[in-house]
Amino acid sequence: MTLDLDRTADLARRLAAAARAETLPRFRSDLAADDKTPEADFDPVTEADRASEAAIRAILATEAPDDAIMGEEQAASEGRSGLTWVIDPIDGTRAYISGLPTWGTLIALDDGRRGVLGLVDHPWTDECFLGVHGQGATLSRAGETRPITVRNTRDLAAATMMTTALELIDDADRPAFDRLKSSVRMIRYGMDCYGYAMVAAGQIDLVVESGLQAYDIAAPKALVEAAGGVVTNWLGGDCRWGGKVIAAATPELAEAARTILSAG
Amino acid sequence: MTLDLDRTADLARRLAAAARAETLPRFRSDLAADDKTPEADFDPVTEADRASEAAIRAILATEAPDDAIMGEEQAASEGRSGLTWVIDPIDGTRAYISGLPTWGTLIALDDGRRGVLGLVDHPWTDECFLGVHGQGATLSRAGETRPITVRNTRDLAAATMMTTALELIDDADRPAFDRLKSSVRMIRYGMDCYGYAMVAAGQIDLVVESGLQAYDIAAPKALVEAAGGVVTNWLGGDCRWGGKVIAAATPELAEAARTILSAG
Repeated sequence: MTLDLDRTADLARRLAAAARAETLPRFRSDLAADDKTPEADFDPVTEADRASEAAIRAILATEAPDDAIMGEEQAASEGRSGLTWVIDPIDGTRAYISGLPTWGTLIALDDGRRGVLGLVDHPWTDECFLGVHGQGATLSRAGETRPITVRNTRDLAAATMMTTALELIDDADRPAFDRLKSSVRMIRYGMDCYGYAMVAAGQIDLVVESGLQAYDIAAPKALVEAAGGVVTNWLGGDCRWGGKVIAAATPELAEAARTILSAG
Repeated sequence: MTLDLDRTADLARRLAAAARAETLPRFRSDLAADDKTPEADFDPVTEADRASEAAIRAILATEAPDDAIMGEEQAASEGRSGLTWVIDPIDGTRAYISGLPTWGTLIALDDGRRGVLGLVDHPWTDECFLGVHGQGATLSRAGETRPITVRNTRDLAAATMMTTALELIDDADRPAFDRLKSSVRMIRYGMDCYGYAMVAAGQIDLVVESGLQAYDIAAPKALVEAAGGVVTNWLGGDCRWGGKVIAAATPELAEAARTILSAG
């Protein structure tokens, strides 16, 4: 069976829209509530996470019943099509509970060999980044969709790098990470999945992180690759199942980062 | 002469709108331009910074000709009213050139004793945070304006803290800063002026930074104070002219942070 990529991309967009309908109304839900005395067991991010994943699964149950689903919140659903949807309903939950705009919904489709589609949706900024294997990547905002592509940075000295927080890098890796940090032009922190979207959109050049889960990286990886970039683990191997990740605008940049990081 | 605060707030909003008209069209201006060969001397952030401050100054020259102006880009203009507009046309230039949503335009009005108005505008997320001394603070987005207020966190152990980057903290202050960091519930990085806006909006509790200029802190300080928070230097004194800053949701939290930071 050949995968209809246009139909699949349309489905992914509808999944993201359904997730937004759950995440956005709960974002900053305590805004302007002075002297809060939160009710017991009310946890907006947990509610939003669960409701968002449930909304996605409900659509997939109807529209793609033979596909498997791996999500952050619920147990995996098995499938028979050979296709797996990999979902993180809210990536960046700490940003979400802190009112910050960088959290997103991650939706990927894996065909058993690779991610064939990666969607990174940022509801608060109304930006939906979508990459489809072999078809490039786009950014949709305010009803307008335009192509995006990585930029052509090959040298670390010209690169802007991002990582969410230094504390997330293992102590044993810190010396190598610090060497990499001092080799790049600029480093920015704290952006969660927004960093990968900015690599895909040609705004920055490099994201280096560690401790990722499969659902953290599946969609960003497929997005960045569709936009022309390279995403591997720190040894240059496959990072589909998470771990330590390099997302780079060009193969040369990925290689340069890897050389420093793998020297330990 | 009594200051008409409603008229002044309206003027500040118009200044922010004029700045947006210069900053937004230049943001990510190289998006999707593959294999860029930038023209010599074309620097979008410098252009946006200058054009934004010039647009603000042009309006003030007509509407408030007797007020002084202190801006990041041009030399200070003297005034005779006793009022000074303190302006940073783009706070977070590194975020701006990296495509990130956290940069903002800062506009404050100081009456010689205090900031009477502080405006923090985030064009990409369409959020204008405005605080007026004695009148509270508001968030305007998509044509809707609602009141905001700090939250009631008094204990460090319950607090979410932000700082833009650990590298911006002086080496000599790092041990104290690290002690503070390990005393709070959660720390987030990389948000520039967005962090102060989130204190004002009751989403986080604490921002601690150092090396600030007067134009970096004037507007965030007046905003957070109008929303009910406390903004001082690390010794508890006035930070209107910059330096090391604590912005806290409550006096108790500011005091707790100060105690740790001033112990050195």
